[in-house]
Amino acid sequence: MLLERTIERIRPLDRSSECAAQQRLDSLTKPQGSLGRLEELALRIAVIQHKVPPQLGRKLLFIFAADHGITAEGVSAYPKDVTVQMTYNFLNGGAAINVLARHNGVDTEVVDIGVDHQFIARRELRDCKVRRGTANFARGPAMTRAEALRCVEWGIQLAHEAAATNIFLLGAGEMGIGNTTSASAIVCAMTGAAPPDIVGRGTGIDDETLARKITAVENGLRINSPDPSDPLDVLAKVGGLEIGAIIGVIIGATAFRLPMVLDGFISGAAALLAYRFSPHVRDILFASHLSAEKGHRLVLDELHLDPLLDLGMRLGEGTGACLAMGLIEASVKLSREMATFSSAGVKAQLT
Amino acid sequence: MLLERTIERIRPLDRSSECAAQQRLDSLTKPQGSLGRLEELALRIAVIQHKVPPQLGRKLLFIFAADHGITAEGVSAYPKDVTVQMTYNFLNGGAAINVLARHNGVDTEVVDIGVDHQFIARRELRDCKVRRGTANFARGPAMTRAEALRCVEWGIQLAHEAAATNIFLLGAGEMGIGNTTSASAIVCAMTGAAPPDIVGRGTGIDDETLARKITAVENGLRINSPDPSDPLDVLAKVGGLEIGAIIGVIIGATAFRLPMVLDGFISGAAALLAYRFSPHVRDILFASHLSAEKGHRLVLDELHLDPLLDLGMRLGEGTGACLAMGLIEASVKLSREMATFSSAGVKAQLT
Repeated sequence: MLLERTIERIRPLDRSSECAAQQRLDSLTKPQGSLGRLEELALRIAVIQHKVPPQLGRKLLFIFAADHGITAEGVSAYPKDVTVQMTYNFLNGGAAINVLARHNGVDTEVVDIGVDHQFIARRELRDCKVRRGTANFARGPAMTRAEALRCVEWGIQLAHEAAATNIFLLGAGEMGIGNTTSASAIVCAMTGAAPPDIVGRGTGIDDETLARKITAVENGLRINSPDPSDPLDVLAKVGGLEIGAIIGVIIGATAFRLPMVLDGFISGAAALLAYRFSPHVRDILFASHLSAEKGHRLVLDELHLDPLLDLGMRLGEGTGACLAMGLIEASVKLSREMATFSSAGVKAQLT
Repeated sequence: MLLERTIERIRPLDRSSECAAQQRLDSLTKPQGSLGRLEELALRIAVIQHKVPPQLGRKLLFIFAADHGITAEGVSAYPKDVTVQMTYNFLNGGAAINVLARHNGVDTEVVDIGVDHQFIARRELRDCKVRRGTANFARGPAMTRAEALRCVEWGIQLAHEAAATNIFLLGAGEMGIGNTTSASAIVCAMTGAAPPDIVGRGTGIDDETLARKITAVENGLRINSPDPSDPLDVLAKVGGLEIGAIIGVIIGATAFRLPMVLDGFISGAAALLAYRFSPHVRDILFASHLSAEKGHRLVLDELHLDPLLDLGMRLGEGTGACLAMGLIEASVKLSREMATFSSAGVKAQLT
């Protein structure tokens, strides 16, 4: 019910503030358009917020952790328990995303949506566990449809909570050994692409592991026959718990008109599914970076999103999203803080 | 004498810390290489500093302001006095670079290297005025060889002062109506490229102004015959005062082993000349972004530098440099602050 109600709440984007937002940008002491994509970012934020100039606030990134039964097929360069170990690393502030979040002033919330481990309750870890990891989707469905729905609804719930506070920008990252395999299966299911064209090296696998990974995706698609017209079916059959939660955050952010920054390949796969739930998700989504993961370009093309950064990153965790959140915040500050030609007494363009 | 002594001081980069810097990066809790170019940045900083992990410190950006006699040819969309007006805007904190510098924690120093205006002395404005703007290089040399040398030596002096403080990263931006015309002439002189292939729309000029701008560059090159084997000759004949100062900062940064971030087309033209003074400048230079200005790609190709960002920016002032300084600082923090596999108890890669 929460999913349906949230989707019903989504409205086409009201673009009536676009003209005023563009005028604001053109009044600032710089040649028109000379800040390039930073101006596009400030404009989009103003339109989403329906405020000129756009407002600032907290930046919040969810890090969803979950395990994947597909690891039994030998698809990753890391053992499955690295998901737990890295979750503790997030909580202790030692992971790449912690460093980048501190650097960019991004708040993080670590969410256990499905790690195969019993954590002791602690304030820094949000317990949204739906199940202890997915089943091996090369042998059967990853989870039940009800579980898939619960993941999505957790994401909506978290976006709803964020919308009730001083958040102006959301992001989502993930950790889950095996999740590029699941994301690849989703992308193949949703686009019809062949697994060898999508499956990449994830954390850095060798040729033999890559071959197993392709076979695992092929088997998963053949055995489960996910229905691309039914995104919940695709999520349940070949998806991941963290992917479901990201879908929910995207849908929630769209309903609550919060700008939301995608990370890399995994959150891109989630966005493909979210887009099937509602095409309006594109109105609030920002593509942070082009991942080095093979299938990411296709995902962004399908979403008609143009990444801000291309730094050869392929880590996940929200690292790309976090860097882009800094750029988006900068664009809003430019729109808010720059002097205008008249306030600074600078002569405008001759022509 | 200062220029010669500084160039003599330059040594080939000691790369002996490269291996330890790479080992440090590979010990951190992430798949090897998964942070892409951020790892390359951290590695380069460590090698330049000869410290593993690299050190942090203040980030300092010089904004060099100067006027250009070439504006008499009608080459810009803005009147010449915008250089003065924008210099006041920098001092009052209202320009794009001020906003981005505050956002990224970058200190700025506004330097009058040749504005055609008598400023009242104030602490925030560094007075290094060499002359009140260049002469119109379409009719004769832009400045004397002695003046060109003084600009370069001011830049060296400023880099020297920075090296004596807690600076770990330098940048340079500029403001000078007409300076893309001067930079275009330099690039043509140094590369042999034809003016129509290099001259771009700068602040956003129309076709008629563009035609005048190309003619001005062609006339300047024909009348002055700058000698590409003599960078000071090129600077004096078709250059700008701020371009000379940026050359000096680059040479000084190389001698004092300070990493230095280029901005866009103007600082790229300065780097081409600095590279002719000493090819070792490439060891410490970082290309921040690819400018929308037409000739910038060729400049970066000549320098074998790969830009970090491609956001369609074409403002100058150091805006691109400032954004990249944030990324470079982030890369150093990653190298310093991330947990290692052993400290975090995370299992390393299987293979």
